Amino acid sequence: MVPSNQWIKIKAPATVANMVCGFDILGFAVNDPYDEMEMRIVKRAVGQAAITIINIDDYNLPTDPELNVAGAALLAMIEEYTANSTIEKTVVDFSTIGFEVKINKLIKPGSGVGSSAASSAGAVVGANYLLGNIFSKDDLVRFAMNGEKVASGVKHADNIAPCIFGGVTLVRSIFPLEIVTLPSPELFVTIVHPQIEVRTADARSILRQKVLLKDAIKQWGNIAGLVAGLMKSDYDLIGRSLEDVIIEPVRSILIPGFDALKLSCKQAGALGGGISGSGPSIFMLSKTEEIAKAVEKEMHELYAGMNLPHNTYVTTINQKGVEIVDLF
Amino acid sequence: MVPSNQWIKIKAPATVANMVCGFDILGFAVNDPYDEMEMRIVKRAVGQAAITIINIDDYNLPTDPELNVAGAALLAMIEEYTANSTIEKTVVDFSTIGFEVKINKLIKPGSGVGSSAASSAGAVVGANYLLGNIFSKDDLVRFAMNGEKVASGVKHADNIAPCIFGGVTLVRSIFPLEIVTLPSPELFVTIVHPQIEVRTADARSILRQKVLLKDAIKQWGNIAGLVAGLMKSDYDLIGRSLEDVIIEPVRSILIPGFDALKLSCKQAGALGGGISGSGPSIFMLSKTEEIAKAVEKEMHELYAGMNLPHNTYVTTINQKGVEIVDLF
Repeated sequence: MVPSNQWIKIKAPATVANMVCGFDILGFAVNDPYDEMEMRIVKRAVGQAAITIINIDDYNLPTDPELNVAGAALLAMIEEYTANSTIEKTVVDFSTIGFEVKINKLIKPGSGVGSSAASSAGAVVGANYLLGNIFSKDDLVRFAMNGEKVASGVKHADNIAPCIFGGVTLVRSIFPLEIVTLPSPELFVTIVHPQIEVRTADARSILRQKVLLKDAIKQWGNIAGLVAGLMKSDYDLIGRSLEDVIIEPVRSILIPGFDALKLSCKQAGALGGGISGSGPSIFMLSKTEEIAKAVEKEMHELYAGMNLPHNTYVTTINQKGVEIVDLF
Repeated sequence: MVPSNQWIKIKAPATVANMVCGFDILGFAVNDPYDEMEMRIVKRAVGQAAITIINIDDYNLPTDPELNVAGAALLAMIEEYTANSTIEKTVVDFSTIGFEVKINKLIKPGSGVGSSAASSAGAVVGANYLLGNIFSKDDLVRFAMNGEKVASGVKHADNIAPCIFGGVTLVRSIFPLEIVTLPSPELFVTIVHPQIEVRTADARSILRQKVLLKDAIKQWGNIAGLVAGLMKSDYDLIGRSLEDVIIEPVRSILIPGFDALKLSCKQAGALGGGISGSGPSIFMLSKTEEIAKAVEKEMHELYAGMNLPHNTYVTTINQKGVEIVDLF
């Protein structure tokens, strides 16, 4: 394959990791917000790197491929492409060609809805398309996890998996990687992003390394209940299972007004919800759009009352994951 | 209602609690072995207790209703029947009438396949039938848990729930009690009962009160995977999810030859399996009866080689739970 200079346009959805009780294993993609990216394969000029990152937003993220989450994900993909003799390769030779990647982050970095995952996942899905879709989705998750390592120091897949597969996903095992997609009924998602900074690494470091067995048992009862509730389309069971006795009690202290917000959202009719990923965003699931909007109003009133700048989203579960939306 | 002296005959199935990764929350009922019971409502003679237990097996279990698991379960039921003014009562008055219960234990006590649960569950399902089915299955689980308390000191529902509901059940929450039934594909179950004694209380006391968060995460990944595998009829996912990194490493030391047995059963084609409840029985799940019989052969050969007396069963999941099988 000779580089065609063909540009593709990519839409990479935000994701909500953990889903309250499913720390490090559950996550889902949402239709709003999302990142936009553009990619093409180009002939490399002498001395040019295999990956050129061009930021077209104002976040000043690193453009060095090894420090950029999309770059790190693509480097892992190129490495396997080059080393793996079992995949059917086109004539692409990464010593003479490379990827140009333009990133327009519409998902604010650090907001807790998978901003880094969107860039990593978007990049590898786009690159795979340009290479003729030779890698499986599982492969792409593995590559994109290298982007998460750059972002947070840990190779986790709970945002990457739903970003690439869409819908609700379970990371049953991380080594070896196994992703299970979970069917889910129609759910409306309300997200609030209070404009405070919670670093993923900090949110992880405050967790206790040991937990009480009796708490772990409660947690896995809820996880099993949540999976069953999603697969049975049992909204009440979903709601009752959205309870976290291990992570939330520790992490929620980093988020102003968390307990009051959760209570008022549930009083407004939300099935339940909690911290999105490592925060600071908070998400709530509702059965109808009307309730999801009432929940948004509660979120707005609480943070407005605290004079805390914030954005909100009312959206639905994205069932497609990263999409190629245009060629140009 | 006047006591009719009508006898009913009850079949109460054995159950496998925990299901490897779902300690204290998952369980399923099997078609073999099962307990047989007979019950009727009789007019009490002066000075006679409300519950008369008659053992028609050779296990010499206590016949004092407070010390007998079926008796304790029935006492809890009678107490609620008498105290609760919201249930629609027949004219039954437990100051003048009582239950006669004959128990033929075909499930050996202490074998780890829910022998005590079968007696407790059988008794309350039978009594409920005789009273006109006024209590829900959830109520019956609550009553029967009092039998488990007599047997092991702890009110747990992971055997009681599948015994009463049939199939695979999830105890999402114990207080308040919430049972979720899980659909499952056809599965063949091989059980071996090595004739050694493991007391439930001992098997519980050796567990660590704290577990590593990273192990808990692995465990809940497997639990979520198992629930999804059962509901998707994905046998391979069920097999991969039958892994316990928390309880089995501790408890399996109480069971001779455990690791070797598990390995040889999986080599014979079993999807997976582990300790049934708190042991000493071990169960394995297989996709076909042929494999389940090959697994039985492995079990037999291993324990015969160790000169360890044992019984085996090849059976299927019981989808009905406790049944009234005859009136006479």
